[in-house]
Amino acid sequence: MENAHVIAPIEIPTPAGGMEEHGFAPCDGGVCAARGVRAAGVHAGFRRDPSRLDLALVAADAPCVCAGTFTTNRFCAAPVLVSRPRAAAGRACAILLNSGNANAATGDAGMEVALASSQIAADALGCPPEQILVASTGVIGTQLPLDPFEEGVPAAVASLASSPEAAHDAACAVMTTDTCAKEAAVAGPLPLGADGAPVTVHVGGFVKGSGMIQPNMATMLCVITTDAPLDAEAAHEALLAAVKTTFNHVTVDSDTSTNDSTFLLATGAAGGETIACGSPAYPAIAAAIRGVCETLARMIAADGEGATKLVTVDVVNASTQADADAAAFAIANSPLVKCAIFGRDANWGRIAMAVGKSGAAFDQRACDIDLMGVPVLRAGLPLPLDEDEMLRRFERDCIDIAVSLGAGSACSRVWTCDLTHEYVTINGDYRT
Amino acid sequence: MENAHVIAPIEIPTPAGGMEEHGFAPCDGGVCAARGVRAAGVHAGFRRDPSRLDLALVAADAPCVCAGTFTTNRFCAAPVLVSRPRAAAGRACAILLNSGNANAATGDAGMEVALASSQIAADALGCPPEQILVASTGVIGTQLPLDPFEEGVPAAVASLASSPEAAHDAACAVMTTDTCAKEAAVAGPLPLGADGAPVTVHVGGFVKGSGMIQPNMATMLCVITTDAPLDAEAAHEALLAAVKTTFNHVTVDSDTSTNDSTFLLATGAAGGETIACGSPAYPAIAAAIRGVCETLARMIAADGEGATKLVTVDVVNASTQADADAAAFAIANSPLVKCAIFGRDANWGRIAMAVGKSGAAFDQRACDIDLMGVPVLRAGLPLPLDEDEMLRRFERDCIDIAVSLGAGSACSRVWTCDLTHEYVTINGDYRT
Repeated sequence: MENAHVIAPIEIPTPAGGMEEHGFAPCDGGVCAARGVRAAGVHAGFRRDPSRLDLALVAADAPCVCAGTFTTNRFCAAPVLVSRPRAAAGRACAILLNSGNANAATGDAGMEVALASSQIAADALGCPPEQILVASTGVIGTQLPLDPFEEGVPAAVASLASSPEAAHDAACAVMTTDTCAKEAAVAGPLPLGADGAPVTVHVGGFVKGSGMIQPNMATMLCVITTDAPLDAEAAHEALLAAVKTTFNHVTVDSDTSTNDSTFLLATGAAGGETIACGSPAYPAIAAAIRGVCETLARMIAADGEGATKLVTVDVVNASTQADADAAAFAIANSPLVKCAIFGRDANWGRIAMAVGKSGAAFDQRACDIDLMGVPVLRAGLPLPLDEDEMLRRFERDCIDIAVSLGAGSACSRVWTCDLTHEYVTINGDYRT
Repeated sequence: MENAHVIAPIEIPTPAGGMEEHGFAPCDGGVCAARGVRAAGVHAGFRRDPSRLDLALVAADAPCVCAGTFTTNRFCAAPVLVSRPRAAAGRACAILLNSGNANAATGDAGMEVALASSQIAADALGCPPEQILVASTGVIGTQLPLDPFEEGVPAAVASLASSPEAAHDAACAVMTTDTCAKEAAVAGPLPLGADGAPVTVHVGGFVKGSGMIQPNMATMLCVITTDAPLDAEAAHEALLAAVKTTFNHVTVDSDTSTNDSTFLLATGAAGGETIACGSPAYPAIAAAIRGVCETLARMIAADGEGATKLVTVDVVNASTQADADAAAFAIANSPLVKCAIFGRDANWGRIAMAVGKSGAAFDQRACDIDLMGVPVLRAGLPLPLDEDEMLRRFERDCIDIAVSLGAGSACSRVWTCDLTHEYVTINGDYRT
């Protein structure tokens, strides 16, 4: 058993340019951490339970830069069809989100409701409807009623506030099978003042998502805000880059929802010179946006439907980025690997199987595997396992899997969770 | 509710050239249905329980034509590395299969045992070791002991017989988490006699497979035999074509094992002219081989780990074959779809989600979905559902899902099963 511990664990490269390197650190305030942002969460009536918030509004004090990324699912919902071109135009006043109904597979009638709801918000806020972004999450295939917007939107506008409590209400109002609200915020300096003097900027946000679906429900929705003065291209670029390695590297059940949407509002309220893609301040604010997205992404995996463990999968030394991603997702999506983690089973054979089937190019005689920091396979051959030590490590909330393919230098990290009886119960229960 | 029933169900084209069209029908005898084939299953000691058969031998009366297809998993097992070139050579005497140990991730030592086991069988049968094909299924990463072969192979040779009982013993000896032995056989006429007079030929076989893995176990293994006088190229071609649309269209958990192997022995004992790829008799025997493979493939899906339902997914009117396959597999591998079936939930929204994320090209406004023969979605919009009728249909053992993409004429069929608590229990139990 001793020799397993003298073998060095697989080295996982720390990507350069993380937000910490740029002086960003976590702060309070969630989606309201950024100046110039107000939020609200109210009960509008999409859900029957009057104690459940079901309408969230995140508004900028003035029209500001925005960006968005959306589901690639061809059965995409009406709000996605409405918001995609509006986000691409790069300027928005507010984001209106409801839970309880996904407004998906609802045809022309669903489009009309999505458009009408944005008109109601535009009237209440005094801006053109094209500057309202909309998002929905909930049941698929049921018409979204317009009535709850008629009373809910004015109520939300009336309670808009720039406080941690208002941010939390908005985060709560989009929850479906989520067991907790998921918020994050960071603050740090950008050289935006005269002669590059540092100005403190904030990035905050919330996300919802637990499975593709609650019994018949859909979606991951995310709102990120910053007071940094990004231009539209920089906002789009930074959001796209952040989503690519964070939300797009989370998998609970391999299922892509019909409603996935991530929004970024950049109010510029921090002041200072506008940040373009080539600006000196761009790498730092991009890192901060990525940092908030990564924190929220990990929260989704940890709160995956029925999950008891957050699982981080690292694949290193792959031949290409595509190979690294394919191998990492093959492990993270393998029901057998996920069940083994639920069962506290140090079953590296299933991890080997998953990378082997992934299509990534490698020689099994060059493959190494670590489980929870313990080397379990070297050069394709198993090492003796201290089962008691493995069981002790399985007590952790976070389980790390690392695989080295010995085929190059590309690497990929994916977050997932275990597969449990509770997942089957949640998703096998007959709709009520 | 009425109008759901006046809408015609999706039409699923019956592929031309099925074995019934060629006069083939099921018969008894399993892998021994073909003349010139003997089989045996014995307890050799790979498993501790002496009542469990764990070594199977399928032998031709004389060296004969063979073919094989093997896992594409890069962590492929030693017996796959040994058998692949031997099958490609096109001539074999026997197939030796053990359960209880997969001989995977076992390095050079595992290769030596695989080679030595084939030498023992060659000595006992009086043929060169290159004419022995080997296969293993069971624990990954544990050295396969040679000792059980020393006594087990002579015992198996001594009990070789051409009987349904011997065929059944062989089928039982390769079972792992399988809850039943899986055998099939068909008989039919081929125009092989003088002036094309019909000669009766047989195709039989067995398969094992239930998940990628039992706690730490691997594999699908299949042996098909026929007494039709195929030449090596025709045997290879017919097996490859059959596997492509049968075993390669089954998914229990999307995981590809390290040991998957399918073998075909063609003894030629039926007599008559040799069948080449271009022979008049080729389409009929190819259809018969495909028919046996399809029967065995459906048995795997129905006996998937923890399964309560066999699920058949048909995607029709896709733009390309690749799109049809991608959409069918996306549905069949969706944990949310599979949990819904377990929960008797007519949750077509998850089916729409799965085809939408599959990458297949289509317009949601042209998409139709049927569940258990009931139209539930037409032109992207839901139809009223008679929930009581759906619950009645969920009593069936076989659940059919049909999706029309309205984008072309390609179609694909995939078999799978539901995802249950029992699957999590089987694969989450700590290894004992």
